[in-house]
Amino acid sequence: MRACDVNLIRHLPLFLEISPDQLPGLMETALIQNVPPNTQLFFQGDRPDFLHVLIEGQVELFAISADGRESVIEVLSPVDNFLLAAVLLDTPYLMGARVLESARILMLPAKCLRQEISRCPKLAIAMLASMAGQFRTMVKQLKDIKLRSGTQRLAAYLLRLNRIKGDRIILPISKKILAGRLNMSPENLSRAFATLRDYGVSVQGHSVTFSDILKLEEYGLPDALIDDVEPR
Amino acid sequence: MRACDVNLIRHLPLFLEISPDQLPGLMETALIQNVPPNTQLFFQGDRPDFLHVLIEGQVELFAISADGRESVIEVLSPVDNFLLAAVLLDTPYLMGARVLESARILMLPAKCLRQEISRCPKLAIAMLASMAGQFRTMVKQLKDIKLRSGTQRLAAYLLRLNRIKGDRIILPISKKILAGRLNMSPENLSRAFATLRDYGVSVQGHSVTFSDILKLEEYGLPDALIDDVEPR
Repeated sequence: MRACDVNLIRHLPLFLEISPDQLPGLMETALIQNVPPNTQLFFQGDRPDFLHVLIEGQVELFAISADGRESVIEVLSPVDNFLLAAVLLDTPYLMGARVLESARILMLPAKCLRQEISRCPKLAIAMLASMAGQFRTMVKQLKDIKLRSGTQRLAAYLLRLNRIKGDRIILPISKKILAGRLNMSPENLSRAFATLRDYGVSVQGHSVTFSDILKLEEYGLPDALIDDVEPR
Repeated sequence: MRACDVNLIRHLPLFLEISPDQLPGLMETALIQNVPPNTQLFFQGDRPDFLHVLIEGQVELFAISADGRESVIEVLSPVDNFLLAAVLLDTPYLMGARVLESARILMLPAKCLRQEISRCPKLAIAMLASMAGQFRTMVKQLKDIKLRSGTQRLAAYLLRLNRIKGDRIILPISKKILAGRLNMSPENLSRAFATLRDYGVSVQGHSVTFSDILKLEEYGLPDALIDDVEPR
């Protein structure tokens, strides 16, 4: 692996506490790939060959039902590793992964990673923290779906973006993907956007502006135990 | 801790690879409690004091929204530890836990457990496997909700019970809790049971009988990547 890449790995949350010298086997076999949009990195049901760590770009995790229906489960932003659980347990992926925006991805060979984890306690601890964050992210999505109406989920989602980016934002994902993420049909998403006009939300294409955040908060009821991003 | 209790701990999945002698601090501070139904073990938002391991009985994990709506997220059966993620990260619980059926619960002090995990790599590895299983359980529930209709979810749930218990089963949880678990209102659950009559499902109180499993499977489309129980 090139020196610049080793330097990159050294700064990833998973490896902050570990010097690359402690993981020579992993550093030798790791690779970094630039992957164009629409590439399917792996399929639901595949056995993991690698742990993927998203360094740049955007990746969608999606599930397919027995009769071919597809739904977005999560949209990942850097830096994040994905589906660590399947890699650790050496068990089939529950979801497939597809690149949405040109991605730079670190690929750590699964078998080698499992060996290093049993050899290097610091790596096991780092993985444990990441795994716990991923668990809590899934619980938060379940709470979002089970406790809120579709329109409230949209309001809470927009409020999360507003908190980071202010009163004029660009949706970071397409409306089709957003609908799937919020467990709504595209038609219901459109209706929800229309409802939120009464709460000061104006939409034009991917651009959203907010004119009455307090009113929107009263409706969407932001909740740290659902909306705060988990460290991963 | 009493010798009989240490013996019990030795046989828990989390501790199979570890001799209790390797965890003297944890064994000294662990306790086992018999807890009556309706006891709330902890509240959503609490900071964890213990890791709870359910040894006997039944426990419900539930979430509450900002405006006081409550929903079941999961119903746990023995042996299972719960909300390990919050304990590991020392971060507020995303859900509360309530005893449904008289429970016997092992309580491992959170701080002591975290110390032992950094000291004992085998324990870290065991926790990692458990954490991965809990993550996959949440993903499976999300897939169940996002890919299936409510009635299909009920069919798939009943098929899971049928696979274990045969053509005459007793529902292991109340219909109110079942409705919450399946993300349906109690009224929709009743309607779904009525719909499944056409697929050979008869219900009387908590007793359910099946007369045409093939037809029910064609409707519920069981799927190992949603329905198989994860080892925890």
